[in-house]
Amino acid sequence: MSLRRLLYPRSLAIVGASDKVGPGFNAWNALRAVGFEGDVHLVNPKRDSLFGQPCYGALADIPGEIDAAFVAVQAEHVLEIARQAADKGAGGLAILSSGFGEVGTDGAKTQRSLAALAAERGLAVCGPNCLGFLNFSGRTALFGTSLPDQVPRGGVAAVVQSGSVGIALLNSARGIGFSHLITSGNEAVTTAADYIELLADDPAVQVIVVFLEQMRQPRKFVDCVRRARAAGKPVVVLKSGRSAGGQAAVTAHTGAVAGAVEVCDAALRQSGAIQVFSLDSLIETALVFTTLARPLKAKGAAMLSLSGGEIALALDAGEQAGLTLPPVSTARQTLTDLLPAFSHIANPLDLTWAGLYDPTVAQRCARALGEQPDTGLLILLQDAPSGLGPQQASRYATLLSAVADGAAEAAVPLVTLSNISGDLHPSYADMAANKAVLCLRGTQEGIAALAQRLAWDRQALDDTAPAASPETARAAARAALDRMPAGVQVLDEHHGRRILASYGLPGIDEILADTAQEAAGAAQRIGFPVVLKALVAETTHKSELGLVRLMLQSVEEVHEAAAALLERARAVAPVTTPRLLVQEMVTPVAELLVGARIDPEFGPVIVTGGGGVQVELFKDVAIRLAPVTPETAAAMIGETRSGRLLDGWRGRPRGDIAAAAAAVSALSRFLHDFADEVREIEINPLAVLEEGRGCRALDCVLLRSDPSIGRR
Amino acid sequence: MSLRRLLYPRSLAIVGASDKVGPGFNAWNALRAVGFEGDVHLVNPKRDSLFGQPCYGALADIPGEIDAAFVAVQAEHVLEIARQAADKGAGGLAILSSGFGEVGTDGAKTQRSLAALAAERGLAVCGPNCLGFLNFSGRTALFGTSLPDQVPRGGVAAVVQSGSVGIALLNSARGIGFSHLITSGNEAVTTAADYIELLADDPAVQVIVVFLEQMRQPRKFVDCVRRARAAGKPVVVLKSGRSAGGQAAVTAHTGAVAGAVEVCDAALRQSGAIQVFSLDSLIETALVFTTLARPLKAKGAAMLSLSGGEIALALDAGEQAGLTLPPVSTARQTLTDLLPAFSHIANPLDLTWAGLYDPTVAQRCARALGEQPDTGLLILLQDAPSGLGPQQASRYATLLSAVADGAAEAAVPLVTLSNISGDLHPSYADMAANKAVLCLRGTQEGIAALAQRLAWDRQALDDTAPAASPETARAAARAALDRMPAGVQVLDEHHGRRILASYGLPGIDEILADTAQEAAGAAQRIGFPVVLKALVAETTHKSELGLVRLMLQSVEEVHEAAAALLERARAVAPVTTPRLLVQEMVTPVAELLVGARIDPEFGPVIVTGGGGVQVELFKDVAIRLAPVTPETAAAMIGETRSGRLLDGWRGRPRGDIAAAAAAVSALSRFLHDFADEVREIEINPLAVLEEGRGCRALDCVLLRSDPSIGRR
Repeated sequence: MSLRRLLYPRSLAIVGASDKVGPGFNAWNALRAVGFEGDVHLVNPKRDSLFGQPCYGALADIPGEIDAAFVAVQAEHVLEIARQAADKGAGGLAILSSGFGEVGTDGAKTQRSLAALAAERGLAVCGPNCLGFLNFSGRTALFGTSLPDQVPRGGVAAVVQSGSVGIALLNSARGIGFSHLITSGNEAVTTAADYIELLADDPAVQVIVVFLEQMRQPRKFVDCVRRARAAGKPVVVLKSGRSAGGQAAVTAHTGAVAGAVEVCDAALRQSGAIQVFSLDSLIETALVFTTLARPLKAKGAAMLSLSGGEIALALDAGEQAGLTLPPVSTARQTLTDLLPAFSHIANPLDLTWAGLYDPTVAQRCARALGEQPDTGLLILLQDAPSGLGPQQASRYATLLSAVADGAAEAAVPLVTLSNISGDLHPSYADMAANKAVLCLRGTQEGIAALAQRLAWDRQALDDTAPAASPETARAAARAALDRMPAGVQVLDEHHGRRILASYGLPGIDEILADTAQEAAGAAQRIGFPVVLKALVAETTHKSELGLVRLMLQSVEEVHEAAAALLERARAVAPVTTPRLLVQEMVTPVAELLVGARIDPEFGPVIVTGGGGVQVELFKDVAIRLAPVTPETAAAMIGETRSGRLLDGWRGRPRGDIAAAAAAVSALSRFLHDFADEVREIEINPLAVLEEGRGCRALDCVLLRSDPSIGRR
Repeated sequence: MSLRRLLYPRSLAIVGASDKVGPGFNAWNALRAVGFEGDVHLVNPKRDSLFGQPCYGALADIPGEIDAAFVAVQAEHVLEIARQAADKGAGGLAILSSGFGEVGTDGAKTQRSLAALAAERGLAVCGPNCLGFLNFSGRTALFGTSLPDQVPRGGVAAVVQSGSVGIALLNSARGIGFSHLITSGNEAVTTAADYIELLADDPAVQVIVVFLEQMRQPRKFVDCVRRARAAGKPVVVLKSGRSAGGQAAVTAHTGAVAGAVEVCDAALRQSGAIQVFSLDSLIETALVFTTLARPLKAKGAAMLSLSGGEIALALDAGEQAGLTLPPVSTARQTLTDLLPAFSHIANPLDLTWAGLYDPTVAQRCARALGEQPDTGLLILLQDAPSGLGPQQASRYATLLSAVADGAAEAAVPLVTLSNISGDLHPSYADMAANKAVLCLRGTQEGIAALAQRLAWDRQALDDTAPAASPETARAAARAALDRMPAGVQVLDEHHGRRILASYGLPGIDEILADTAQEAAGAAQRIGFPVVLKALVAETTHKSELGLVRLMLQSVEEVHEAAAALLERARAVAPVTTPRLLVQEMVTPVAELLVGARIDPEFGPVIVTGGGGVQVELFKDVAIRLAPVTPETAAAMIGETRSGRLLDGWRGRPRGDIAAAAAAVSALSRFLHDFADEVREIEINPLAVLEEGRGCRALDCVLLRSDPSIGRR
C-alpha cells in the first residue's frame, strides 16, 4: 500500500534540501528530531553536499529506490518531480508547495493533473499546500516547519487540514502525547479518510483527532471512523464551516432541513465519531481518551469540591453533556461520619472547609466514593489558577494529593477540573504530575470530554446498512418508474405511491378521476368523508395552491368541490390537463415527514420528523445516511420531539411506530437503490395511525434526476 | 445609606483580630494590602494589644462610632455582636461565619433572626457564610482570605455568591483589573441587587460581573441592572443552577414552558444584562468591556489571520454569536496590491505567508482594514501557545507588533484571539503588553465577548412597563371577577373571556346552552359552521377529554353532537352539571398561545408562542416580566418561530400581528393588576386572523389563587 510507504518510509528524499532556514532545512531537522534511522537522500542541483552528505541534482540521480519524497518547490515543478519519484519507485510524496486548488482556476487545473498522475502511478500524496507530517511512533517525518524543543510522545494521532491548527496543537503545551501529526492540506490525492484507515491499524495510536475544513470522500470517511472505533480507537472530529451559506430554493421540505451541515453532523454521529466544536474541546477530549484508556469500572462519575458554587457550575455543564452522576450509595455512612453535621451528602460532594483543613478527611471521602460500585471515575473540581498566592496554592496541592491517594486506594482514576482555562499554578500542576492525575480545563470542555469517555465503553452504534431490497421489489419499482410519463421531473403523489408500493410502503384507498361526475362516483365507492385533490403536472405544495379539500361528506359536496378544484387547477397551470384524486380520510395519531434525498457529498440520506409546515419551522428532524434498518428508523423517530406524539403524549393513543419505522426504512432503501435516477422523494405527511393500524402516505412527491445536471 | 458605610467605611472594627493565620489575621493584612487609611479597631478579649495597637474586649469598648465591623466568630455569637455594632452606630457588618441558612433548619432560624435585627437597626450585612469584600478603588476591605501578591487594580467590580469563585477570579492571572470583589454569601440582608445599585454609581467601576447561585430580590435585581446599564456600565451575569429539577404537574401550558430557568433567562435579557455560561466567558467579557471602554467607531469588526483553518473556526463562532463582519469596502484595492495574486480578499482576511514573512504587509493590511468606515475593531486571529519554539514565537510576536502598528495608525483598537485557552508564549504576551493589545482566549468565549461589545453601543432595550390600565378596565374586571362562582379555582373559557373583555381582549361570538335543543338554536343564530364545547367545572384540556367538536355544519349535526358531549361530560365529572358553549368557527392564519402566570420568584410573567400541543413539544415561546407594552409584545411574537407563520410564511396571508400584540400586552396588564387573586391565565389558542381582521381567544383558562397557599 503506497500510503503506508509514504508514512512509514525506510528510504526517502528531500527535494529542495538546504542549510538555510526554510522547509528543506526544517525537514532535515525534523528527521533528526524524531530519530529517523533510514536513508535520507538530499536533492538540490545547486549544492554538491549538505550536512556532510552528497547532494543530488535530481531525484533521478539517487541510486536505488526511494519510499517517499519531501517536496517544497514551486508549484510548476511539482508534477515533474512527482513523475521522477514514481520512476524511482516511490510510494508517495509530501508536497508542501502551494499554488494548487487553493489559488483558483489555474491552480485547480494543476491539482487535477497531479491527482491524475498520482492515480496512474499509484502515488500517495500528503498535501499539496500543507506542512507535511510527523510520525513520532514510526520515528520518521516529512515536515517543513520547525519543531518545539519538546513534543511529548504518546497515543494521539492528529490529522488536520490546516497547518496552523497543526502548529497550534503541536505547541499547545497541554500535555498531549503525539504519535502522528499529519497536515493533509488540499488532499488532492490522499484524504483524511485514508489516513484514518491506516492509523486505525497502528498499535501506537490510541486516539485519532481530526480537524476538517471540508470532508472529502465522505462515505469512506464514515466507514473509516467506524473501523477505527471497532478497533477501540475513538475519532474526535472538529469540523469547521458551519456558518450558513445561502440555501438554494427547494421543491420539497427535505432539502431545507437536511442541508450540508445537518447531513455532515448526522454522518459523524452515525460513524461513532466524537464531534467537538472548539480546539479547546478537541484537546480536552484527546487528553481524556489517552489518559483514561482502559475500560472504567462503571459509567458514572463521583465529583468532589470545596465549593457549592463550583458544584453548581459543574452540574449545569454535566446536564448539558449528559454526564452520569449516580447518587451516593455505599459511601453514605462513611461520608456522614467524616464530614460536619450540617453537610449535604450528595454527588457532587461538597467537602466543605473540613476537607481543605484536614487532608485525611478529603482522602477518606475520595476513597469511599471511589469504592462505590457505580463510580468509574473521580473528579476533583478545583480552580488553581497561576495567580494564587503560595499559601493557597500549597493548600490546594495538598488537597489534590490527598484526593489522589484516596482514589489510588479505591483503584479508580482521578481527574481534576478547573473552571478557568489558563495555566495552573505550578505547585498544583506539579502535584498532579507527581500523582499522575490528569488536569482538565474549562467547565464545559472538561465535563463534555469526561461524559464522552464514560459513555464510550458501553456505547452502541446504529446498525450498519440493512440487507439489500428483494430483487422483486427492485424490479417492480423499476417497472413502475418506466411506466411513468417521460420528460416529467416531478412525479405526483399518485404516481409516487405506485412506485413506493413496490417497496411495501403503505398507500391509501384512492381513485383517479377526470371529471366532477367521476369524482363523486369514486367518493361513493370509497366511503365518506373523503379528501379531494387536484393533480397538476410538475407542481408540489398543493395545499398552498388551494388544490386540496378535506372532509367532504356527501356526493353533492364532492361534486361542487371537484368543479371548483378543476377550475382552480386550470388557473394555476393553464396548459396542462388537471386530474382529480379522491382519497379515504384517515385520523392519524400524528403526521410525520419522511424524506430521502441525494446529498451532493454523502449521497442518499433519509430524514424523518414532524410533518406539515412544522418541519421547516422547527427543523425537528433526525437524519441518517441511507439505507437504514427498521431498528435505526425507529431510533430516528424516537429522537425527534414529534416522535413523542406517537408515544402516548398527554393521553393520546400510541401510534404505530413499527409501521412508521418500516416505512422510513423502505424509503431509505428505495432511494439507495435508485440513486441514479431519483434525486429526492418525500412523503409529507405520513399519517401514523393507532398502534397496530399502520400508516398511510397521504402525500408524496418524487423528483427525478435531471441528467443534464452533473452529480457525483 | 448603611450599605455605603459598610463598603466605604472610614472607621472599622475587626472582631476576632489575631496574629495567627486565619480570617482575623487575613483581614488585618487585607487592609494593609489595599492601603486603608481610616481607623481600625481590634477586638479580641484574649489580647491586650495586637500589631502595636490596643485590643478591645468587645465592640462596646471601642471609643466613638464605627462604620463597619468584620465578624468571623462562631455563629451563636453573631447576633450579639451585630447588636453591639448597631449600638456603636455601625452601618453594617461583613459576617464570614458559617452556620446559617446553608446548614439546615436551625441555621435558617438564626439567619432569620439576623435579618430581622438588621432590618430593625438599619444594618447592611455582607454574608453570612462569605469571605467578605475587597474595595480596591475605595482602599478598604473586610476580607478574610489571603491575597495574591499582585492584584491588578481596574474597573471590574465582581459580586459573587461563592467565595471559591471569588478566589478563582481574583487569582486568575488573566489581567482583570478589579475595583471591588464582594463575596455576598447567603445574602441574608444585603443582596447582589443592592451591591449593583451602589456600584452603578461608583465612578471607579466600569463593568460589574456577577456570579449567582440564586437570584434574590429578583425584580430589584432587574431594575438595578437596568440602572447600571443606563449609567453606561454593563452587568455580566453567570447564573448557575440551570439543571432541571422535577417540574411540578401543571394545569396549563404556560407553567410548563416558563419554568424557573426560562423566566430567569428572560428577566436577565430584559434587564439588559450580558448573560454568560462559563467562568471563562465571564472573564473574557469583563476584559473586553474594560479594555474597549470607549464608543467604537462602527459596529463591525475586521479580522486578520495567517490561516484559513483559524478563519473557518472564527466564522463558525462569529455566526453563533452574531458578530458583525462587514465585507471589505474601501480597503479592497490596497489589500489587492499588497497580497499575492491568488489571495482571497475578504473579511476575515487571510494574510497568507506573505503577511508572516513581511511585517510591513501585515501592518499596511491592518491599517487599510482599520480605516474602513465600518470597522470598529480589528481582531488578529493567532494561536501563540506557550509550547512554541523561539523561532515561531518571535515571528508571531513580530506579526502582532506589525498589526498593532497598523491598527494604531488607523486609530482603531486591536485585540488578538487564540483558539487555545492556555497561557500565551511569553514573547507574544509581552509584545501584546508593549503594544497595549488585549489578548483573548478561546474561540467561542472571545468572539462572543467581542460580539457583545460591538453591539453594546447601539443596543436598545425593551420599553419599560406600559402605562397603567385605565381605571374603568380595572373596575370592570373587578366586577366580573366578583360575579364569578365562589369557591371555584379554575374558571372556564366563557367566564375567562368575560373578564378579559374588560381589558379589551377580543372574545368570540358565542352562546351558552344547557340542552341539545338550546345549542341547536344557538348555532342557527350564530351561523354555520360552529364549534361546540362542553364546559365542566374545574376542568381544563377539553380537547384531550373529547369535549370539543369542530366544524358542525347543520342543526342536526349540532343536536347530535350536543347530546354526545353532554353524555361525555357527565362521564368525566359525574357530580357537576355540564353546560354547552356554541361558538362561531374562524379560520386563523396561525394560532398562538398567550399565557401569564405568577412566577414564585419574579411575580407576573407573560408568555407567547406557538399554540396548540406544539407549545410544550417545541417550547417555542418568548417570555417577559409582565406587564409589557404592545411594542414589546410584538417583539416577543417576532422572536418565536411560530411568529413567522404570521409574517407571510410560504405564501400565507399576513396575520394581524398588531391585534395579537395588543392582546398579549392586555393579558400582561391584567395579570399584573390582579396578581393577588389570579395565579395563571392562558389563552390557547389565540386565533390570529388576516391582517386587519383581529384575533379571537378561542379558549381560555383562568386559575384563581388559592389563598391557603402562601405566595411572595
